[in-house]
Amino acid sequence: MSTNTETEAFYREVDEKHLVPLWNITQDALPAEPRTPVKPHLWRWADLRRLAHRAGDLVPIERGGERRVLGLVNPGLGGKHAATRTLWAAVQIVKPGEIAPCHRHSPSAIRFIIEGDRTYTNLNGDKCVMSRGDLVLTPSWDWHDHGCESDEPMIWMDGLDLPLVGDLDATFFEMYPDHRFPITDVNESERKFGVTHLRPTWEKPPEDRSPLLNFKWEPTYDALQRIGEGPASPHDDVCFEYLNPNTGGPVLTTMSCTIQRVRPGVRTQAHRQVQSSVYLAFSGSGYSVIDGQRFDWEEGDFFVVPPWAWHEHANPTDGEAILFAIHDTPVMKALGLYREESYTEGDGHQEIRETFEP
Amino acid sequence: MSTNTETEAFYREVDEKHLVPLWNITQDALPAEPRTPVKPHLWRWADLRRLAHRAGDLVPIERGGERRVLGLVNPGLGGKHAATRTLWAAVQIVKPGEIAPCHRHSPSAIRFIIEGDRTYTNLNGDKCVMSRGDLVLTPSWDWHDHGCESDEPMIWMDGLDLPLVGDLDATFFEMYPDHRFPITDVNESERKFGVTHLRPTWEKPPEDRSPLLNFKWEPTYDALQRIGEGPASPHDDVCFEYLNPNTGGPVLTTMSCTIQRVRPGVRTQAHRQVQSSVYLAFSGSGYSVIDGQRFDWEEGDFFVVPPWAWHEHANPTDGEAILFAIHDTPVMKALGLYREESYTEGDGHQEIRETFEP
Amino acid sequence: MSTNTETEAFYREVDEKHLVPLWNITQDALPAEPRTPVKPHLWRWADLRRLAHRAGDLVPIERGGERRVLGLVNPGLGGKHAATRTLWAAVQIVKPGEIAPCHRHSPSAIRFIIEGDRTYTNLNGDKCVMSRGDLVLTPSWDWHDHGCESDEPMIWMDGLDLPLVGDLDATFFEMYPDHRFPITDVNESERKFGVTHLRPTWEKPPEDRSPLLNFKWEPTYDALQRIGEGPASPHDDVCFEYLNPNTGGPVLTTMSCTIQRVRPGVRTQAHRQVQSSVYLAFSGSGYSVIDGQRFDWEEGDFFVVPPWAWHEHANPTDGEAILFAIHDTPVMKALGLYREESYTEGDGHQEIRETFEP
Amino acid sequence: MSTNTETEAFYREVDEKHLVPLWNITQDALPAEPRTPVKPHLWRWADLRRLAHRAGDLVPIERGGERRVLGLVNPGLGGKHAATRTLWAAVQIVKPGEIAPCHRHSPSAIRFIIEGDRTYTNLNGDKCVMSRGDLVLTPSWDWHDHGCESDEPMIWMDGLDLPLVGDLDATFFEMYPDHRFPITDVNESERKFGVTHLRPTWEKPPEDRSPLLNFKWEPTYDALQRIGEGPASPHDDVCFEYLNPNTGGPVLTTMSCTIQRVRPGVRTQAHRQVQSSVYLAFSGSGYSVIDGQRFDWEEGDFFVVPPWAWHEHANPTDGEAILFAIHDTPVMKALGLYREESYTEGDGHQEIRETFEP
Repeated sequence: MSTNTETEAFYREVDEKHLVPLWNITQDALPAEPRTPVKPHLWRWADLRRLAHRAGDLVPIERGGERRVLGLVNPGLGGKHAATRTLWAAVQIVKPGEIAPCHRHSPSAIRFIIEGDRTYTNLNGDKCVMSRGDLVLTPSWDWHDHGCESDEPMIWMDGLDLPLVGDLDATFFEMYPDHRFPITDVNESERKFGVTHLRPTWEKPPEDRSPLLNFKWEPTYDALQRIGEGPASPHDDVCFEYLNPNTGGPVLTTMSCTIQRVRPGVRTQAHRQVQSSVYLAFSGSGYSVIDGQRFDWEEGDFFVVPPWAWHEHANPTDGEAILFAIHDTPVMKALGLYREESYTEGDGHQEIRETFEP
Repeated sequence: MSTNTETEAFYREVDEKHLVPLWNITQDALPAEPRTPVKPHLWRWADLRRLAHRAGDLVPIERGGERRVLGLVNPGLGGKHAATRTLWAAVQIVKPGEIAPCHRHSPSAIRFIIEGDRTYTNLNGDKCVMSRGDLVLTPSWDWHDHGCESDEPMIWMDGLDLPLVGDLDATFFEMYPDHRFPITDVNESERKFGVTHLRPTWEKPPEDRSPLLNFKWEPTYDALQRIGEGPASPHDDVCFEYLNPNTGGPVLTTMSCTIQRVRPGVRTQAHRQVQSSVYLAFSGSGYSVIDGQRFDWEEGDFFVVPPWAWHEHANPTDGEAILFAIHDTPVMKALGLYREESYTEGDGHQEIRETFEP
Repeated sequence: MSTNTETEAFYREVDEKHLVPLWNITQDALPAEPRTPVKPHLWRWADLRRLAHRAGDLVPIERGGERRVLGLVNPGLGGKHAATRTLWAAVQIVKPGEIAPCHRHSPSAIRFIIEGDRTYTNLNGDKCVMSRGDLVLTPSWDWHDHGCESDEPMIWMDGLDLPLVGDLDATFFEMYPDHRFPITDVNESERKFGVTHLRPTWEKPPEDRSPLLNFKWEPTYDALQRIGEGPASPHDDVCFEYLNPNTGGPVLTTMSCTIQRVRPGVRTQAHRQVQSSVYLAFSGSGYSVIDGQRFDWEEGDFFVVPPWAWHEHANPTDGEAILFAIHDTPVMKALGLYREESYTEGDGHQEIRETFEP
Repeated sequence: MSTNTETEAFYREVDEKHLVPLWNITQDALPAEPRTPVKPHLWRWADLRRLAHRAGDLVPIERGGERRVLGLVNPGLGGKHAATRTLWAAVQIVKPGEIAPCHRHSPSAIRFIIEGDRTYTNLNGDKCVMSRGDLVLTPSWDWHDHGCESDEPMIWMDGLDLPLVGDLDATFFEMYPDHRFPITDVNESERKFGVTHLRPTWEKPPEDRSPLLNFKWEPTYDALQRIGEGPASPHDDVCFEYLNPNTGGPVLTTMSCTIQRVRPGVRTQAHRQVQSSVYLAFSGSGYSVIDGQRFDWEEGDFFVVPPWAWHEHANPTDGEAILFAIHDTPVMKALGLYREESYTEGDGHQEIRETFEP
């Protein structure tokens, strides 16, 4: 009923008018299940640490550059500066005597401390002193600077929703007029809100953010140990989510954090989720299998689990293996998009088809 | 326009037809502000303890009677078995070797442990072992029995919403077929949910109740001390509310709990609230002023603050003064009825017009 | 182990110290299921209407008396001025030219219009003009006066949470300095919020109350008819709950309203709920069976269904039978106390053991 | 302290290790305010309609292609198939006798009917019959097919969160085994839930979606007219948001819809928001000024307002001017990213620097 010429003319005009025929792109626009470009990848701590210190030698912390941070770049994203499509993950180093200048931004951040002490994040005047294993929040639009009062540099993991907020055209950024925000208290949030089964009656808690800004390592580690040999997650073994004590929900609107102990001898069963994650091997060693590829990790390594990728974790050693991770799960849940599925073939373990070599 | 006879006939018929003219009862039905019959009152620990032990000698714990409990009866309520119009408060004693039989009820309960140890509340099979200062929940309709494995009796404070639920015609009660519920675990809720900034990812938390059933004294006491000399509530000094870690809300739908340290030398400023409360002077001594009447309390004493009554607390000693309390505040807030007001005359302290003598 | 004398002395002291032994009152305090004193009862419209008009002749509307209202008194409540333990229900009459003076109170109210027109409730300055079948809200603490601009009196049903709020010691009342509140608009809430699938973007809706104050009869009646012969509730036939368009929840925090059409020939199956209700037979006739007692109702009659009472409704006629009702269900749900149960004996109909004669 | 060579070697290694120095990309990653690539653009109805009909001649509706849809392609997005970064907008045409085959997908959709009648969307068996001006929902993962029973084609606007869900790697798609889903009822959602101030008591409403699927034009138009000459939005004149009657929130988790009447002679004041929008000029004509550029629109035209772009609307005619629009605002609000700002220069109107020529 129509000649090729007519059809060609039609498609040409469609294109000229800034239109696209859905019937020609349905397979791409509506795949049966997610086909992400995000690749699983692992970054070695030896590299990260060395390059962070090297950056410490070469690059000052200044206005404009703002922070001495090396961000993970997912090799599947064509140069996009992101660990996954939604998450930014990085190592940051602050050297003795330095103060990373005060600013604020609509993207939210977490810090998880890898090494060092006597270093702080100053949040709107509350000087939160940080140590290894602490989880420190920087909620959206809070003023913050970082300072190192130790003789040794501090290195931590940064986790932000930067790519997501950028893609949503919702990034705002502002420099504080002075280099640092005036400090009004030390460890205030910890002192008032750190025993999280209790809340001060004399303060109206903030509605949209966690009143606790520093989740200390000691009670966190205690929680991991308490489970002992008891039953835990088939997919993640002893895995806890950090909570906003005001709501019992995730610590940030856009990002959740987990701390996870894979007990000696455990290899979990695989599952997949509509979410992306960046893991830090906080202590010990082990491996994860992601879509059939084995990633061996040691203390300090970072790795990415892409959306809807089968993944499982193993600790073949006699010792500790603790993983910290950030996830964009709250975004998926808030938008009604979260799903998960258990791997049911065989005994729930994937066949390992290859081993990752960084 | 109408004779007295006509009017009388009208009122007579109105009455016969089970009606009431609002214009004759407006002052009572719609007072300018609450005029409660609830009286402030104080019960001496010396009496409570002695009578509890006496009950231990005289009365067995049996089916039918169910529990060895002495309930506070507010002297203003005409014999109603209640500490306030909504709250039941009591002392309960369990003796070595006893098991108070398993049952469940729609009213919710808390226990706050006053003396003893190695005694438990078994909640749906989770044996929660209790010590002095612990707060233990019994959410609505949970099976529970209590057992004492110590050589000494245990005494605790019971707090229930029994009068409220009774007045709402919503009380259900059921005896468990056996004397005790089969114990499946020990301190399970504490082990999994006791570090309340973390939540196990391998269990869907219950939607309508706190997953943590035993709020231990040690971290609670720590929270009270952390504030040091820092600013706190003008009305309650260092006062914390216990939280349901799943929601950041009150531990029970109908009842909130607070733990409060009145620091040496502090006399708070008065306020009043649309709520009623029962206090336990958990440790130390001091006094409270309630609607101009001074109530001196010592360790173990109970006292009631009626709705909309001005009240303030004082610790004139050099030592510790810690108050535990239950409140019906969540009811008022859920129904949109909560209000509070600060006492602004003079320096915020009431004039003491009389001193309570029990 | 103890002599009677000792026991007597113990009980005497317990009583003197304002205590009660739970083991002696367990059966009363913890019944297996609710045993309410509230009685089912029916008030005839012929009486209500006649007495309302009579009140119109005998009693002016004045400050102090405030309103010309005849309240239902439940015969089971020992003289308490209440239709059920939580609900006040009444008929109110306003005569041509009268203005019931402006006041506000913490109890919330609904009006459901029975007869008359060109009469209004003025809510904070919005003059809501009312007609038969309209449901008009008076949320807690809103200023309101009522005025009749017709040549005929208006009579409506009042429904309030007065007994509940009174028992919770949460009643506040205030007279407006002038007789009426200045009228700033007419039917404003209807105009802006009356098409309830849409909300104006230029106003921040109130957080704690329905922005729509007058739910008009015409669309309500339309909803009842739309169901036609389609499936509906086995217990209530075509029964709808009015919604707060801001939340999709009940129109008031403490009270829900339903409009219900029992189709010709229908006799519903019984059920019982932890809630109490007051019904107005708005049009037509039929009967309800409440705990085995038959209540025949005609247009204008009021009747009470007590908590946890089996009840079913029947329309044995060929014509319309429409019931409006208020319920304290939101209270029960907010406090976690709601339950319901279907009557499963036989065909779900109760045996009628007696017929109510007013 | 470091030679260029050292620095170059550092940057080379950083790049090789899939890392990026934040200090080199701070300006891009953290702009002071959003700098979107999305361009404002307008598509003429004359083109859209002609090409839609042309597609009707040339392209069948088949499995695989699924739908006869022409999607708007924003000229700023480098070929990405999207109207804005989050929203898909399109015209869809169904011809007499056709049935677009049944499928479901995790992206959510709305349809707004432009021309035609006796055509339906069948949602899980509920045949929703559509007419001009109706808004019909297709919530995430609901089965749906479309059929035309008229003698004339129907054309509607499609709005989906397709780009957002795709970028979040959360797209799932499934074909129904048969060409169409078995129809079990006609206009069921309308009949039960169409009077949105009432909800049937005999059905538990769905938790995660609107129970009403077809928001009819007649009451919608009524709402627009009711405001008359009364005050409305300074930025949008008479603008309403469609509501999920269960929650009072947006009709979809990820997308909100508005209907807007710009009254004759009105030119609104500009504002900007962290959100993107696609408008359909549903009736009448007028113009919008977007970031200083004037877009004249006539009935049927589509246009895009990018994130954080100043925009204002004007109706310089004596007649009707009605705009329908979809927005990603619920995403921004759910993630805590929403902001808005009023244009305060001069009288709130932007200077028009150029006029858009399609």
